[in-house]
Amino acid sequence: MSAALLSPEGLEAALRAIGAERYHSLHPFHRLLHDGKLDRGQVQAWALNRYYYQSQIPVKDALVLARLPTSELRREWRRRLEDHDGDGHKPGGIARWLKLAEGVGLDPALVESTTAILPTTRFAVDAYVHFVRDRTLLEAIASSLTELFSPAIISERVSGMLAHYDWITAETLAYFMPRLTQAPVDSDFALAYVQAHADTVEKQQAVLAALRFKCDVLWSQLDGLYLAYVAPGLIAPGAFAPAGGR
Amino acid sequence: MSAALLSPEGLEAALRAIGAERYHSLHPFHRLLHDGKLDRGQVQAWALNRYYYQSQIPVKDALVLARLPTSELRREWRRRLEDHDGDGHKPGGIARWLKLAEGVGLDPALVESTTAILPTTRFAVDAYVHFVRDRTLLEAIASSLTELFSPAIISERVSGMLAHYDWITAETLAYFMPRLTQAPVDSDFALAYVQAHADTVEKQQAVLAALRFKCDVLWSQLDGLYLAYVAPGLIAPGAFAPAGGR
Repeated sequence: MSAALLSPEGLEAALRAIGAERYHSLHPFHRLLHDGKLDRGQVQAWALNRYYYQSQIPVKDALVLARLPTSELRREWRRRLEDHDGDGHKPGGIARWLKLAEGVGLDPALVESTTAILPTTRFAVDAYVHFVRDRTLLEAIASSLTELFSPAIISERVSGMLAHYDWITAETLAYFMPRLTQAPVDSDFALAYVQAHADTVEKQQAVLAALRFKCDVLWSQLDGLYLAYVAPGLIAPGAFAPAGGR
Repeated sequence: MSAALLSPEGLEAALRAIGAERYHSLHPFHRLLHDGKLDRGQVQAWALNRYYYQSQIPVKDALVLARLPTSELRREWRRRLEDHDGDGHKPGGIARWLKLAEGVGLDPALVESTTAILPTTRFAVDAYVHFVRDRTLLEAIASSLTELFSPAIISERVSGMLAHYDWITAETLAYFMPRLTQAPVDSDFALAYVQAHADTVEKQQAVLAALRFKCDVLWSQLDGLYLAYVAPGLIAPGAFAPAGGR
């Protein structure tokens, strides 16, 4: 592939173009969710599987943390751990996601065990953790840049779900509220980092590929949910089966 | 989980029971394939995606090889590398799979690039490689035991495909013929190894979990193919789209 060195603005534009093409807000499962077209069992399947993603975010952030070279950078990244794991008083993102799962009618112990998730969910999420562990630090940081696009999808999801599902309350969706301010802080930092450090064509291409990879991680999770719980309803052996059918 | 220590025969029976429940011969995509219900584009998608699995088998076998402690064990396992990579004269499994892909009308260069595979395929296959790298040697070897079940699926696949697809020749399916004798040799060795080394309840449970994991790896690949190329036809951004549609 022949490519030119991009300016910082050009790199940002190229990253945003990837989001516009491949972010999971474009997936039919997301549209069904926020349009209120999913029944309770389908929303449960989403919450249960997505919990595994949430649960691995601090793992992947700890892997990034371990590779950052300065106290300043580690302090910056450490905030993400607190956002997801809490501080022992204020619940973090994982605890809030368990509340969400409970709010849609799931047994939190089942959710926390992650035994009933789809293989496709597990492999996609684990791929993210392994990517962050095995690739360059620059690629690991770049793979977090889907957060550039997350405030829009979160707003859409929250308003859509509250409008369409009378069995979902604002309290159940409390997970998302802090993310609306946390995600932009995180992605501003990560974007500035990759703009400063991707100083060759090869590195810029690696950054773009890392974001494409991360979009695939999110997309594949919704693919798995769609196949198992929307159509044709092909649930892998051992995975969650909604009670009362559909 | 409370479980009793199994005899070698009991362990084999438990392994075979997992296959009977979770092996991908039970997946609807396999049935469509061997019943001749897939069109050419769908068979192409299968061959193209499955190539990535084939291409990573020697990688995972090399990871096992690197962890085996004796020349005797490494010689035994090295045969697998030769089966898949060939000896420079006789083509190995990967080269034969490329022939298969070409035989069903694909550009071998596209197949070899693996750029058009589904994210779900990539994540499932990579999960297998990472499992073999990161888990115990016993679990790594146990995860190869799906070969206990492969001669049956291969016979079914070959006879079904030859009977139903007049554009598929026996030469195209040459990949499978050596596997009918190679797989039993390999699985006999791996079975004897886990029977000899899984000498505690914990190790036996780990062996059974490793085989379940591997069944999930195969199952998830067919899940991905089904969603993208059978129904509802949701092809992930950037993945292979059959020419001429369906």
